[in-house]
Amino acid sequence: MLVVTDLVNVRYLSGFTGSNAALLIVAADPLGGAAGADDQAGSNDSATVLATDGRYTEQAAQQAPGLRVLIDRDCAHAVIADHFARHTAAGPGRAPVGFEASAMSVADHAALDHRLTSAPASVELVPTTGVVEGARLVKDDGEIALIARACAVGDAALRDLLAEGALAPGRSERQVARRLEWLMFEHGAEAIAFETIIACGANSAIPHHRPTDDVLRHGNLVKMDFGAVVGGYNSDMTRTVVLGAADAFQRDTYELVRRAQEAGVAAVRAGVTGAEVDRAARAVIDEAGAGELFTHGLGHGVGLRVHEAPPVSSGATGTLPAGAVVTVEPGVYHAGRGGVRIEDTLVVRDGGAEILTRTGKDLRVV
Amino acid sequence: MLVVTDLVNVRYLSGFTGSNAALLIVAADPLGGAAGADDQAGSNDSATVLATDGRYTEQAAQQAPGLRVLIDRDCAHAVIADHFARHTAAGPGRAPVGFEASAMSVADHAALDHRLTSAPASVELVPTTGVVEGARLVKDDGEIALIARACAVGDAALRDLLAEGALAPGRSERQVARRLEWLMFEHGAEAIAFETIIACGANSAIPHHRPTDDVLRHGNLVKMDFGAVVGGYNSDMTRTVVLGAADAFQRDTYELVRRAQEAGVAAVRAGVTGAEVDRAARAVIDEAGAGELFTHGLGHGVGLRVHEAPPVSSGATGTLPAGAVVTVEPGVYHAGRGGVRIEDTLVVRDGGAEILTRTGKDLRVV
Repeated sequence: MLVVTDLVNVRYLSGFTGSNAALLIVAADPLGGAAGADDQAGSNDSATVLATDGRYTEQAAQQAPGLRVLIDRDCAHAVIADHFARHTAAGPGRAPVGFEASAMSVADHAALDHRLTSAPASVELVPTTGVVEGARLVKDDGEIALIARACAVGDAALRDLLAEGALAPGRSERQVARRLEWLMFEHGAEAIAFETIIACGANSAIPHHRPTDDVLRHGNLVKMDFGAVVGGYNSDMTRTVVLGAADAFQRDTYELVRRAQEAGVAAVRAGVTGAEVDRAARAVIDEAGAGELFTHGLGHGVGLRVHEAPPVSSGATGTLPAGAVVTVEPGVYHAGRGGVRIEDTLVVRDGGAEILTRTGKDLRVV
Repeated sequence: MLVVTDLVNVRYLSGFTGSNAALLIVAADPLGGAAGADDQAGSNDSATVLATDGRYTEQAAQQAPGLRVLIDRDCAHAVIADHFARHTAAGPGRAPVGFEASAMSVADHAALDHRLTSAPASVELVPTTGVVEGARLVKDDGEIALIARACAVGDAALRDLLAEGALAPGRSERQVARRLEWLMFEHGAEAIAFETIIACGANSAIPHHRPTDDVLRHGNLVKMDFGAVVGGYNSDMTRTVVLGAADAFQRDTYELVRRAQEAGVAAVRAGVTGAEVDRAARAVIDEAGAGELFTHGLGHGVGLRVHEAPPVSSGATGTLPAGAVVTVEPGVYHAGRGGVRIEDTLVVRDGGAEILTRTGKDLRVV
């Protein structure tokens, strides 16, 4: 039995998107009695119970029509108390109930534990981590289709941005970022996946630069890292271009990152570890003597969160399963001078990677 | 001694805005030795220590020039271990260190406790809640000036939206929301405070409606709840208008909410409780027999978070101090038919309320 309080996990399991919720997942009755967690279709007798507060009564009924819904502000307590009001604990002692230790604060845990200890049935809260995240790791076709749509939104927005000449000397990073976000909305994004990074000139050497009023100038590197949300699922893409004319430093840096990114993508297939993929890309940069300028991991999983399992970095010993969706995003950053990052979102398949972000990766001078 | 891991609290205390950080606040040496938390100007000998990871080395030095900065991914552990490496614990037994129980997950707490227990100096993590939030409750003039600027951005954006005729039949809720957000950026918002609510027709009866592709029609109520961020500080305002022509039901509902909002604002002054302010507004709606249609609390504090202390609701027994910034936002929601909410952001002063959101509140037919 697991009480799910991470709202992304609640959404994954139930479809409900409200901002206050808990879900109780209970195993099917082994003696064949009341239905278990799989019985989500049409019936309100399901043992899976959702709690939310009065703001979301109607929304919960619409989004999670197969679930019993409790209306109670104190969601986690409500679903557990409801369960033990309807079922007697199996044995003597405290009944164990798993909770998501990464999604519950120490204060919320203490309050929940206190309320449960004083209830008729005594419950023991047992910490768990990564249970639902493990299920989320392998995406089904419907999920991949949504991520692909989110990636297509990013591709279309960038295409329009370049076509309309929005990357022009004199425009500020902030202006470009807002225009790109606007274009993503125009192409069907329901939200922006994360704060868009537009970094020009020396700013491009800062991996997580936030857009400023600095203006684009002829000869600048312009690094653009952005994503869209469609149906709750995220995309993530980075492209770096040069404004006006590229010099040898920019061409060399770009080409190095492009080759590293290609090597990383080529290493992706079901069964390899995240560390192996990281190493394939990093080796290219190391060989060029620039290893110290690639200061972050190669990539991360993408799904209902823009950063989720599995990691794709030097410490990632887990193998990538078919159906995982990850980024491959090496970067080389020369402080004070400029940096390049190239990033795709892709699906791990048995034979290799299926790239969902389709914008070309040859050096583009705009 | 308190290890601060809530990133908003880290920002409040240090100015640092990175996404991974911890701050250790240590009392000044009672024997007059090394400086304490107040010594943030220019010296790196301050006992207040900030930790962040390698992405933010430069940013931390810029934003928190007076603090010692440690570069370590495991920020909370780093600041505590650093302290006890430089100071021996005062007495026998475990040295108590407060932590923010609402800002640390059970999993992070377990990992930190494990690392600290195996360290040379044995530390006992002690849960605290609301310590820094208590300090944040009373805003200084600089903070109020930023909130006022954020409110002015909202006022200006709404004025432009109405002036350009963007609230026209055939436009979708999503289109209006994006346009309003765009205008807030044009007027200087650095971010949007929360997902803008635009709710037309029957949707206006849903308190926290998310914009859809539903289009505005002649005769619709249009409820708009939105805010801007300036210098990290939020604004929050709701206005409800009618499109084309208002009928008697709309006029009556609007007038009731307007009178309730006026009564709530009139009840605000330093020393009253949040519950008393809530009651003043709710009484107006109760007397009209519509109490059950006002389904949420009257308001909340606003600052570095758009929802923070103090609450302004029926259970809020704490008194409002001068310098607190709160919203007053009654609503009446007729399910399936339409709803009205009117909300201001205001400063609690000794003599009454200073309203920061200046857009007029008479019924507007657009």
